[in-house]
Amino acid sequence: MPLQLLELCGTDPARRFSPSCWRSRMALAHKGLDAEVVPWRFTENATLAALGGKTVPILVDGEAILTDSWDIALHLDQLYPDAPALFQGPPETYRFIAAWTDHVLSACVVRLIVSDILPLLGETARIYFSESREKRFGMPLDQVTAGREARLPEFRGLLAPLRRTLGQQAFLGGALPDYADYIVFGSFMWARVVSPLRLLEADDPIEAWRGRMLDLFDGLARQTPALELAA
Amino acid sequence: MPLQLLELCGTDPARRFSPSCWRSRMALAHKGLDAEVVPWRFTENATLAALGGKTVPILVDGEAILTDSWDIALHLDQLYPDAPALFQGPPETYRFIAAWTDHVLSACVVRLIVSDILPLLGETARIYFSESREKRFGMPLDQVTAGREARLPEFRGLLAPLRRTLGQQAFLGGALPDYADYIVFGSFMWARVVSPLRLLEADDPIEAWRGRMLDLFDGLARQTPALELAA
Repeated sequence: MPLQLLELCGTDPARRFSPSCWRSRMALAHKGLDAEVVPWRFTENATLAALGGKTVPILVDGEAILTDSWDIALHLDQLYPDAPALFQGPPETYRFIAAWTDHVLSACVVRLIVSDILPLLGETARIYFSESREKRFGMPLDQVTAGREARLPEFRGLLAPLRRTLGQQAFLGGALPDYADYIVFGSFMWARVVSPLRLLEADDPIEAWRGRMLDLFDGLARQTPALELAA
Repeated sequence: MPLQLLELCGTDPARRFSPSCWRSRMALAHKGLDAEVVPWRFTENATLAALGGKTVPILVDGEAILTDSWDIALHLDQLYPDAPALFQGPPETYRFIAAWTDHVLSACVVRLIVSDILPLLGETARIYFSESREKRFGMPLDQVTAGREARLPEFRGLLAPLRRTLGQQAFLGGALPDYADYIVFGSFMWARVVSPLRLLEADDPIEAWRGRMLDLFDGLARQTPALELAA
């Protein structure tokens, strides 16, 4: 049986936009593995519960079911040791960049793009998403993203550690990408798929890295339909 | 010949306060190595030039002279492979946390403590430090640190990725410390040695980690004279 990856999408199953699902999709490709896309939409919780999970991504690999992107990456390194490692050292040494991505990068990206997600969703998912996120932010979603162009310089400033690193080497993993790259890239794919907003300036070393990431695996990420405006 | 480490101090050679020198001092201890402290003071640039360097730390290990903390760590792993590795994976995978430490952590710490450094310095060093830092910040140093207690909550907020990671595991390196821990710890030692200000709250997981770091190697860091006020 082929591998299956449950991935968040809206009405169009090709527009997969979850940052954590992108971590797993890129990790699979890194291992030379394909996995059938199983589109999953907000509120389809019975599907997750049947697999013992609460969120996507979920990977089904034969009898193994992994319900979290971190566990998926660990599983892939354990089961497919002949392919290049996702974790080049102990996985614990990748926890900090994952925490930075969640607490700094994604926490800022969401405030720049969250309202762009609504038009991609079917009615049931849209009502759920709108209500849950408005509650989280304490305001309508178009208010969360209002004036976002003016906030881009501050956002870009927060990326200084990433910029500095990618000014020194091609990938976070070194000369070649590893799971740290996929962790961070997931947040940029999220923005690229759902939003016309360009987060980075053309001459930013992070933008050059993003281009290299989009090109990986025969352009796997680049070929995904995206709303990002051309540069 | 014993190893020698040139380390920044003020009038008292025991009060070594440079964050990057602490990285190297802890890295040496991690390798089970002792190194003679060679006190170095601001403006003693001829000493550095004679060794081919421009800043401290500088490690003299027989014929090898390493003029940068990063190179010192690489050297120690290469020359002393039987001791536990400082870099558990490719050194490139530690670049991000080094960049975060420099551009976020230390960049904020300096604005909380820089004026506390002046009284530790002799007259020549004090004049140099005062002038060069006032130029950098565009204001007198006591103005840089003015109202610092009120800025602590914001500073602590910036540490979210570190807090999250150290809430999951004992050290950045996992169950045991590695060079990532020494990179970050250097900035906290800098503050501890020069300033009475307590940067962290008592129940912060980062504070618990800092306690573990202070205890390493028979309390190497804890025994260093410090101006930090007791909790």
